[in-house]
Amino acid sequence: MITLLTDFGTADHFVGVMKGVMAGIAPGVGLVDITHEVPAYGVREGAFLLEQAWRYFPKGTVHVGVVDPGVGSERRGIVVEAEGHLFVGPDNGLFSFVLGAGKVRVLEREEYWLGERSETFHGRDVFAPVAAHLARGVKASRMGRVVKDAMRSPGLEPVRLSRRAWTGAVLHVDRFGNLITNFRVSEFGEVRNRGFRMVVGLEEVELYARTYAYCPPGELCVVGGSCGYFEVVLREGSAAGRTGLVAGSPLELTVGG
Amino acid sequence: MITLLTDFGTADHFVGVMKGVMAGIAPGVGLVDITHEVPAYGVREGAFLLEQAWRYFPKGTVHVGVVDPGVGSERRGIVVEAEGHLFVGPDNGLFSFVLGAGKVRVLEREEYWLGERSETFHGRDVFAPVAAHLARGVKASRMGRVVKDAMRSPGLEPVRLSRRAWTGAVLHVDRFGNLITNFRVSEFGEVRNRGFRMVVGLEEVELYARTYAYCPPGELCVVGGSCGYFEVVLREGSAAGRTGLVAGSPLELTVGG
Amino acid sequence: MITLLTDFGTADHFVGVMKGVMAGIAPGVGLVDITHEVPAYGVREGAFLLEQAWRYFPKGTVHVGVVDPGVGSERRGIVVEAEGHLFVGPDNGLFSFVLGAGKVRVLEREEYWLGERSETFHGRDVFAPVAAHLARGVKASRMGRVVKDAMRSPGLEPVRLSRRAWTGAVLHVDRFGNLITNFRVSEFGEVRNRGFRMVVGLEEVELYARTYAYCPPGELCVVGGSCGYFEVVLREGSAAGRTGLVAGSPLELTVGG
Repeated sequence: MITLLTDFGTADHFVGVMKGVMAGIAPGVGLVDITHEVPAYGVREGAFLLEQAWRYFPKGTVHVGVVDPGVGSERRGIVVEAEGHLFVGPDNGLFSFVLGAGKVRVLEREEYWLGERSETFHGRDVFAPVAAHLARGVKASRMGRVVKDAMRSPGLEPVRLSRRAWTGAVLHVDRFGNLITNFRVSEFGEVRNRGFRMVVGLEEVELYARTYAYCPPGELCVVGGSCGYFEVVLREGSAAGRTGLVAGSPLELTVGG
Repeated sequence: MITLLTDFGTADHFVGVMKGVMAGIAPGVGLVDITHEVPAYGVREGAFLLEQAWRYFPKGTVHVGVVDPGVGSERRGIVVEAEGHLFVGPDNGLFSFVLGAGKVRVLEREEYWLGERSETFHGRDVFAPVAAHLARGVKASRMGRVVKDAMRSPGLEPVRLSRRAWTGAVLHVDRFGNLITNFRVSEFGEVRNRGFRMVVGLEEVELYARTYAYCPPGELCVVGGSCGYFEVVLREGSAAGRTGLVAGSPLELTVGG
Repeated sequence: MITLLTDFGTADHFVGVMKGVMAGIAPGVGLVDITHEVPAYGVREGAFLLEQAWRYFPKGTVHVGVVDPGVGSERRGIVVEAEGHLFVGPDNGLFSFVLGAGKVRVLEREEYWLGERSETFHGRDVFAPVAAHLARGVKASRMGRVVKDAMRSPGLEPVRLSRRAWTGAVLHVDRFGNLITNFRVSEFGEVRNRGFRMVVGLEEVELYARTYAYCPPGELCVVGGSCGYFEVVLREGSAAGRTGLVAGSPLELTVGG
């Protein structure tokens, strides 16, 4: 099985072409879209979305990620092996979340690429064929040498300002306008029982709710989201619309009394 | 085979994650998207779209529907068996169209759910794994007890005002801006030969055309749509744009001279 | 394997319904979306996108294209056999790019269509079932008689104005706002080394770059795109947004000093 995550959108032929290449090399392989609507060149948002999704797929899945502003420059292509999964794409931070647990190789064996290659569409010419060969059973070790200096994406973690205060950021705005923060539920769990104040644009949020359904209508709340990060939500409304915040906007969190 | 209909959009990881869960439980199962662009929390529109699609799939198909404003509250999950198809999702009216012909069970057997569950993403944690187990051949009767009080969605049928007049509503605005009404072709067939007047926002429509291609350019027409309901259309244009109507907008229909 | 390209969007049930029909006739067939976001009624853009994609699929693939403003009128349905691929859809120019190399048949054998047919949704009632029967192995010759007068789409080629000057057009605006022109790299290759001037709306472009990554920030460039046509691009920006041009907008090209 191969999953695809890109910033190509679905209005163009790009994703279909990648699937054609993969179906030609690995007939019958299962192809699943994670999303193709990562904001254009949004490496950090792509990293968040792929982090959310990959664990739910069976071991042996190959995940292709193409958010690739550097295509055609000297940036390398890589394959990462981690926890029984494989990740194929550019070396630009898109796979930050598995680098710690994984073995990284550069893509340098051109016999696994398309014979005729463009300089602007490595998703089709390099990453799709490499992923399909991997899905057919070719070993990652055939693709190139191990490297230790793969790029990590900055800004994925909150920064401590004082004993009780952190500055963080919006990682992602979901379809419902929920603001997904970079405060992990596992690290900031005391938000739930010690009280807190989060500065969200011009508003301050002090309410915690177990789920959307327990938020009072019309009030911004923090919920411990299904994604492992705290989210700022507005019940049956858009927290993003209300606050004007977007992916990348800063947040301040103070925990306790 | 499993179909998916949600209001999750395709910009987030939600749909991909559900597919990962299903592929892990039922390897090789066919996964087909009906749509993920049901308006957020639009239970009635979701019901319309699923009603349109399900019959065209082979018997034995499992249809997962997740339009679920009540997730995390006390609303139940259900599985409906009807005409050889299975429907899995929240008990909130999304499956209104098959409740009459079907047997409804509540989802209460947690061994068919994910082990670790959130309170905000039952699509991933409950509905996807239940659907995958059903697709693998687990009987619906294993999922929970039969209930008789499943919820129905209001507003799906026109209301009679007088002998010749009804008030109805726009069920859905399609991609082309066609206004799909809740007047069924099978019940209001005399529209085609006895004459009629439909009040559509500030306009009155009195023209019937067999298909889009027979509509005079620039004129709103009623056509007997492929979906079994009459539609208000503007040839090579948007009837929704012209009239300002949206899903849920009221309509008035008078039949005969 | 069957690919789908339509102007149906993905918010409605249309595409899901076509897939249900195909899965019922050809169980287990692979279904791949090229795109469903061809601009409504955009036959020429659909032709461009399908031209880009089809060659990357394995031989034997059936490509269904439904951009069909004439549905319900007298326009014919066709199947085109070319280079080991099959193309199914309306006879309106959508398959212009393979007509020269292909054998065209009209669809007239109703036993391969759905029994109950609407006049507005031939994608579901005619093209999906025909494609599924073809994917199962039914010969194209069973579908109808050969014809020689299939329609071609106008405006796909530039027109020569003088010895060094041509007028062309924007074929497509991609997700990144790149303007894909109808000047083929294979025919206008001297743009790369002899110098040129392209009039793009109110701007003149004289810069050529091998790839996006070599474009100077803030400057419109021409690159030899991965699609075989020259593209006007703005690095990490939108050339369409900057110039106001859309699909169909005219361009002027003068080659050499």
